Amino acid sequence: MNLLLLEDSDCISADQAILSGRRLKHMQDVHRAEAGDSLRVGRINGLMGNAQILHMDAQQAHIRFELDQAPPAKLPLTLLLALPRPKMLRRVLQSISSMGVARVVLLNSYRVEKSFWQTPFLQPEAIREQLILGLEQARDTVLPEISIEKRFKPFVEDHLGQMVGDSLGLIAHPGDYPSCPRAVERPVTLAIGPEGGWIPYEVEKLQQAGLDPVQLGDRILRVETAVTALLARLF
Amino acid sequence: MNLLLLEDSDCISADQAILSGRRLKHMQDVHRAEAGDSLRVGRINGLMGNAQILHMDAQQAHIRFELDQAPPAKLPLTLLLALPRPKMLRRVLQSISSMGVARVVLLNSYRVEKSFWQTPFLQPEAIREQLILGLEQARDTVLPEISIEKRFKPFVEDHLGQMVGDSLGLIAHPGDYPSCPRAVERPVTLAIGPEGGWIPYEVEKLQQAGLDPVQLGDRILRVETAVTALLARLF
Repeated sequence: MNLLLLEDSDCISADQAILSGRRLKHMQDVHRAEAGDSLRVGRINGLMGNAQILHMDAQQAHIRFELDQAPPAKLPLTLLLALPRPKMLRRVLQSISSMGVARVVLLNSYRVEKSFWQTPFLQPEAIREQLILGLEQARDTVLPEISIEKRFKPFVEDHLGQMVGDSLGLIAHPGDYPSCPRAVERPVTLAIGPEGGWIPYEVEKLQQAGLDPVQLGDRILRVETAVTALLARLF
Repeated sequence: MNLLLLEDSDCISADQAILSGRRLKHMQDVHRAEAGDSLRVGRINGLMGNAQILHMDAQQAHIRFELDQAPPAKLPLTLLLALPRPKMLRRVLQSISSMGVARVVLLNSYRVEKSFWQTPFLQPEAIREQLILGLEQARDTVLPEISIEKRFKPFVEDHLGQMVGDSLGLIAHPGDYPSCPRAVERPVTLAIGPEGGWIPYEVEKLQQAGLDPVQLGDRILRVETAVTALLARLF
């Protein structure tokens, strides 16, 4: 945790908050913080700054904060991600959040196992928990927007084209395609498939919505590695 | 597993092998393979190609293979990595291996907890297991060279300069430094610190050995995310 994130419900006034639970434990066990210490804080979807610990005991910490710093810029990226398996979903949400992705659509695909949609990790609170861990890691305050599309065809046919707009639309797909571009200076809409990749029908549909296939080389990477590699290359 | 890797000890002749254990289980449970099916195989540190299943039962599979394809090229990279915590070490070894890193030095640093050096995951067989999982994922056969340096100062003072040679020497380090370069077309020696980063003394020592600090932006990434992001950007 490189930034302690404050929820509205933590705040007891415009510049004071009471913390308990996971964040208190982290302050005590990892940072070994004590009353009088200062630490970096941020308000969820707001500014960042510093706080001083006014009082701390086993149940709670009382802090006073001053927020005067903007969070880092988001990547101008909409990521369409075929729903990964639950264990990987959690890690991918964390790394997407830490890398500053602005918007994510978790999408169905032929090769997404139906059971993946049943995971409790897709509950809004569970998604938010992973996103917050990523923000705390990266020192950011702004939650990525996450949407869930369980039906590939109506989403891609009826909504994706408008979502792509005049952004650069890309499909990460192995094969005889151009290399993924580097350091693009414009908004991107990027589709990343499941383990095993998009099926040809899906690639065709994504192409009709304005996305073009690009590849990252011969090596087949795990989804979480591919996501990070593609973002690092694009921006 | 996108490539089934054969050990010398699996091979009963120049073109036949017997498999059991984890790989047999994977063939049966994940690939649902049967006698007569063909699958992609490679010989560790050798060529890749196809195999046919001659016979398979609950105990073993008997395959005949033909290897005629070179593995993908390695990245011309020597990675100096401050020893990550054990759970992350395993994942980092897998992703390093899947991305094609040629050589890795696991190095001590002031911020590496002493207990990390006691983990059983540093045993040669445990390291090899993770590297093989990465190769199987990426369809590669060539194991990265891993070395372990428990003493920072003598390694950096006495050996690192020669290791760097005329490669591009870089230290991933947050701060007011140039951005990490993109798409370099020459060998690189890259040092990546522990959670919390290298201490100033270590940065100075690495600089004396010919490495220059570069940064990846304001966001603080987990070590495994930073490793992937840096490799994707450099190559």
